Amino acid sequence: MIIVVRPGASSDQVQSVCDRLVELGYSIHRSDGVERTIIGAVGSPSLDKVEAAEQLRSYEWVENVIFVSRPYKFVARESKPQRSVIKCRDVEIGGNEVVVMAGPCTVESEDQMDATARSVAASGARILRGGAYKPSTSPYSFHGLGTEGLELLRAVGDRYGLAVCTEVMDPRRVDEVAAYSDMLQIGTRNMQNYDLLREVGQLKVPVMLKRGMSAKYEEWLLAAEYIASGGNEAIVLCERGIRSFETYTRNMLDLAAVPVVKNLSHLPVIVDPSHGTGIRDLVPPMCLAAIACGADGLMVEVHPVPDHSAKDGAQSLDLQQFADLMPKARSVAQAIGRSLR
Amino acid sequence: MIIVVRPGASSDQVQSVCDRLVELGYSIHRSDGVERTIIGAVGSPSLDKVEAAEQLRSYEWVENVIFVSRPYKFVARESKPQRSVIKCRDVEIGGNEVVVMAGPCTVESEDQMDATARSVAASGARILRGGAYKPSTSPYSFHGLGTEGLELLRAVGDRYGLAVCTEVMDPRRVDEVAAYSDMLQIGTRNMQNYDLLREVGQLKVPVMLKRGMSAKYEEWLLAAEYIASGGNEAIVLCERGIRSFETYTRNMLDLAAVPVVKNLSHLPVIVDPSHGTGIRDLVPPMCLAAIACGADGLMVEVHPVPDHSAKDGAQSLDLQQFADLMPKARSVAQAIGRSLR
Amino acid sequence: MIIVVRPGASSDQVQSVCDRLVELGYSIHRSDGVERTIIGAVGSPSLDKVEAAEQLRSYEWVENVIFVSRPYKFVARESKPQRSVIKCRDVEIGGNEVVVMAGPCTVESEDQMDATARSVAASGARILRGGAYKPSTSPYSFHGLGTEGLELLRAVGDRYGLAVCTEVMDPRRVDEVAAYSDMLQIGTRNMQNYDLLREVGQLKVPVMLKRGMSAKYEEWLLAAEYIASGGNEAIVLCERGIRSFETYTRNMLDLAAVPVVKNLSHLPVIVDPSHGTGIRDLVPPMCLAAIACGADGLMVEVHPVPDHSAKDGAQSLDLQQFADLMPKARSVAQAIGRSLR
Amino acid sequence: MIIVVRPGASSDQVQSVCDRLVELGYSIHRSDGVERTIIGAVGSPSLDKVEAAEQLRSYEWVENVIFVSRPYKFVARESKPQRSVIKCRDVEIGGNEVVVMAGPCTVESEDQMDATARSVAASGARILRGGAYKPSTSPYSFHGLGTEGLELLRAVGDRYGLAVCTEVMDPRRVDEVAAYSDMLQIGTRNMQNYDLLREVGQLKVPVMLKRGMSAKYEEWLLAAEYIASGGNEAIVLCERGIRSFETYTRNMLDLAAVPVVKNLSHLPVIVDPSHGTGIRDLVPPMCLAAIACGADGLMVEVHPVPDHSAKDGAQSLDLQQFADLMPKARSVAQAIGRSLR
Repeated sequence: MIIVVRPGASSDQVQSVCDRLVELGYSIHRSDGVERTIIGAVGSPSLDKVEAAEQLRSYEWVENVIFVSRPYKFVARESKPQRSVIKCRDVEIGGNEVVVMAGPCTVESEDQMDATARSVAASGARILRGGAYKPSTSPYSFHGLGTEGLELLRAVGDRYGLAVCTEVMDPRRVDEVAAYSDMLQIGTRNMQNYDLLREVGQLKVPVMLKRGMSAKYEEWLLAAEYIASGGNEAIVLCERGIRSFETYTRNMLDLAAVPVVKNLSHLPVIVDPSHGTGIRDLVPPMCLAAIACGADGLMVEVHPVPDHSAKDGAQSLDLQQFADLMPKARSVAQAIGRSLR
Repeated sequence: MIIVVRPGASSDQVQSVCDRLVELGYSIHRSDGVERTIIGAVGSPSLDKVEAAEQLRSYEWVENVIFVSRPYKFVARESKPQRSVIKCRDVEIGGNEVVVMAGPCTVESEDQMDATARSVAASGARILRGGAYKPSTSPYSFHGLGTEGLELLRAVGDRYGLAVCTEVMDPRRVDEVAAYSDMLQIGTRNMQNYDLLREVGQLKVPVMLKRGMSAKYEEWLLAAEYIASGGNEAIVLCERGIRSFETYTRNMLDLAAVPVVKNLSHLPVIVDPSHGTGIRDLVPPMCLAAIACGADGLMVEVHPVPDHSAKDGAQSLDLQQFADLMPKARSVAQAIGRSLR
Repeated sequence: MIIVVRPGASSDQVQSVCDRLVELGYSIHRSDGVERTIIGAVGSPSLDKVEAAEQLRSYEWVENVIFVSRPYKFVARESKPQRSVIKCRDVEIGGNEVVVMAGPCTVESEDQMDATARSVAASGARILRGGAYKPSTSPYSFHGLGTEGLELLRAVGDRYGLAVCTEVMDPRRVDEVAAYSDMLQIGTRNMQNYDLLREVGQLKVPVMLKRGMSAKYEEWLLAAEYIASGGNEAIVLCERGIRSFETYTRNMLDLAAVPVVKNLSHLPVIVDPSHGTGIRDLVPPMCLAAIACGADGLMVEVHPVPDHSAKDGAQSLDLQQFADLMPKARSVAQAIGRSLR
Repeated sequence: MIIVVRPGASSDQVQSVCDRLVELGYSIHRSDGVERTIIGAVGSPSLDKVEAAEQLRSYEWVENVIFVSRPYKFVARESKPQRSVIKCRDVEIGGNEVVVMAGPCTVESEDQMDATARSVAASGARILRGGAYKPSTSPYSFHGLGTEGLELLRAVGDRYGLAVCTEVMDPRRVDEVAAYSDMLQIGTRNMQNYDLLREVGQLKVPVMLKRGMSAKYEEWLLAAEYIASGGNEAIVLCERGIRSFETYTRNMLDLAAVPVVKNLSHLPVIVDPSHGTGIRDLVPPMCLAAIACGADGLMVEVHPVPDHSAKDGAQSLDLQQFADLMPKARSVAQAIGRSLR
């Protein structure tokens, strides 16, 4: 931690900061410049480092406190000799294979799920997605079939040999949802729902953690750290677009997040271009781009009749569009030395 | 709802949209321009309007679907003849008085709470704030004293005649927190935690709903609609700064939110310049600005010894700074024809 | 400047950074932590400091380079013992008086200008604004009356004892526009048009520098530094709203910019709530808020018949609305100990 | 154009809007819903459409004015039967070949330029970039070698059979810079420098127009329309990252811009991952992603000794890193059916 003291601070004021640092358990290196004094603090404080920094920032004569080390541990790249491979039933995410997850936004019916699963499995998808408990910006929208949706998803996934992934929102429903799923999704609105993160941190089921709509990389990794520090290190990160000033697309897909987060963490990263753009025509090119920059998987919304979809129709591919996309995705994966089923 | 059809759509395609609209229960007005056909849809569809719009957007030959009516009802300005006044114990928020809430980020000890409450009450604050269950970006930070913190807050508030307000994060703890509080706070990270919103919608206790870090006005009001549609219309909205590209301040305080949201809704709006700026020196001028543009109240972080505060010290006023601010706040309130205790 | 070396860098690599710093003219303080080495560099390098930092950042084993001192000099708070007061004809901006500038977006006709100037002068405005050369997002929009507009503005300003302010966009027209103006406006799109900044830096006429649509405070002050370092220190900064994800308003008015920039610089700061919100009804409350947080002036768009205005009608007050605003503005100014004509 | 009237407007008010529309030359379709009246306006108004919309928005009882047609013409997809191929000396941008532009941020010396050009040409680059007039956020930074830099760039480009591209900032220098260049760059800070855009619109030299730091797609295309409407339709658009809340990267590279803008316009689009990320390690993966989603070219900063580069060293590849990137770029291009030299 580096403490920058304001120009003009008295030597008593500088000393009070040094004293506090020592009191917190740091050893200090002080360097007095012409304009400013800078104090380097090294060691293991009695408080959490983030809190210690906050306290130092509170002094009137402290101009800035700069964090040098990363505030997360379990999920940091340095904490493991090699990249994590997350096993989701028989599917490995984070290895050489680029894994494709596909399915509708919302589980609506047996027919819809059967048609989708049969087709996406044939095209090469490995994991079936579908929402049974759905977050909706409006209280008047459809919120999913609940338990019935979970049963349908599980049954249809098993029928076609697909692992299944679905969202959990309420900490009181974590056990129920986990009983039906091979991977739990934490949605963008819940990335900082800490009680929920702690709850899934107790499980043995893999968790797919979507990036919050306006989360910085560090905040995203700290959310993952909540899960990992609870004991569940089977985490897959999912970039799904952030909020920006551009309104043409639903979100701004931040593909640089893929190489950045793979530099900072050993966890696998997948990309959801459906929510990331909100526009069907943009999904295929952004899938290819995601693979090209190193994504370990894709999540794609697919619906047999998008214009009768309960939700997200405008960003869903139909079965044929998904089938057309997959060989192209495979070519790009091969061009960078990876496989795609 | 207005549906804009892409240039070049066939008459069959236009007809299919019209047919779907009629099937959904709309009556339609079609106008064929040189380049584009535009369809106005009026009436009460069988589906929720937001979902109906989503479905129409899914057609390949639909370029845009424009929502004309507001998607919220209970919280809309039009739904009530006059502005809501929310009663929080004996304090009225939304009337002529500008109500000031003050207190530390986190309840730490009896001494800290007693010193703060005594002083802010003497300066004119009406509501004591303090966190017992605290959200933290890092899992390694202090998360509050829990039940012990709630007891302290309640006791000290009663001692000095202050109503009390504290945050609830977990739907499983709503009843406990409500038992100790005159107003419940939903924090920025939980603005779209729908299970939590539904839970507080069942209560009779007033709710202060902070704006999500990247929430649009409409999304904020829809979050309030979740609470109101559950039966609890005692809602106070709180602007607390949004995320932007500027990193000098912790957040970007959006004061235009005050007059905007008061135009769109009958609910009162208060402002939190402590989180809104993150910098102690900026809190007083932004408090005055908030009052000047019509805020019904302020939430200000105050701590007896900010540089030993467990959290948010850099943005907390000390007792004297708060005492100095209040007469200025009173003058500005009077200048616009309002009172401040 | 502080250089943070990546964990795992070899001692040769650390040494190469130290050598480079010495070569650039710095004296260095090195502190080796458990994980990372940190190097403090003090002194006056042979290169510009910003460039020196960029070079250090280029080393593979440098994780971060942190700037400690401010990159601007003339405009920095520390460079002058007291706040600057900018004289614009007989009007002083930056003193005790809150100065109001008013007028239409665009100079359209003698009648329009005469009606506006007469009325706003009577209401207490001190400076008349109006565009003769107008930037427009579309090439097909009206771009102003040019020289004829300048002549009209000057004549009408003189008639009613108002100083005049108008925008200059093209470095080739600086002399022409300056000949008619008491203050030159650099618009938001040109905040980083460096050839234009250098050109107005040669003049003796005061310059009002609007903040760029996505400019950080430091970038804004560096743009002012371009003008000041050319010899013209008569600069007024104008906050006019930044770009954000919210689309309800035209821009997001960042009022915290007022106290922030007054902390960082000795230059006066004014606020333009017309562009800052884009919505007529929001202009009066945001004018009051701007005064309350310390703005040295306001810029308000006023038009005799806003719904026949060539531009910006939706954000223009009519003459009566402006006349109604002024006494309220005066009350708020007095409440914080300032005057307003 | 669609005009939405506020609920509660009187029939006289609605009529006044209709009358104004007819006066402006529109024919109107009015539909009265339960809550709101909506007016569709079709035809060719006497005013520019953007200005007509602005005027309608000025009425108190108009809630919203929605633009249905695109405000640009020459650059719109619909204006040409096929995609534009821009010829830059002997290089075609917008055809099947993915064109790579490479070179240093700034022309520094004969040695630097010769080493770079020789190497990037051997690796497959087609165009040499390098700045002779450089924009810099700080007035104290190096601003380029000027004419000497142009001469060096031209000479070295010719030596290795590379076309050359360099930035122009000042409308007074357009002719000089054009005399040395095969393509002129308009930088991100000048995207809305309309006098400069008009000046290059008079030339026959191709123009590469970078996206403004916070420009929406429509604003970017309107900037291109300024150039095209002046007579110069040889325009290449360049996505280079936008401003966002994430500070880890220098900018947020918006790759969805590639398929979006290719849907809206017939102009070719290239990508600059060097500025788009600001971090050397992220440049290669983002180059591959840009190609995968359809970019017609890349602009990559390359320097023989990045850590002695005058500018942008941290985002510059060295010669070997660039040489290593090119075969991968070629593989990805081939995977989607395109070539790369």
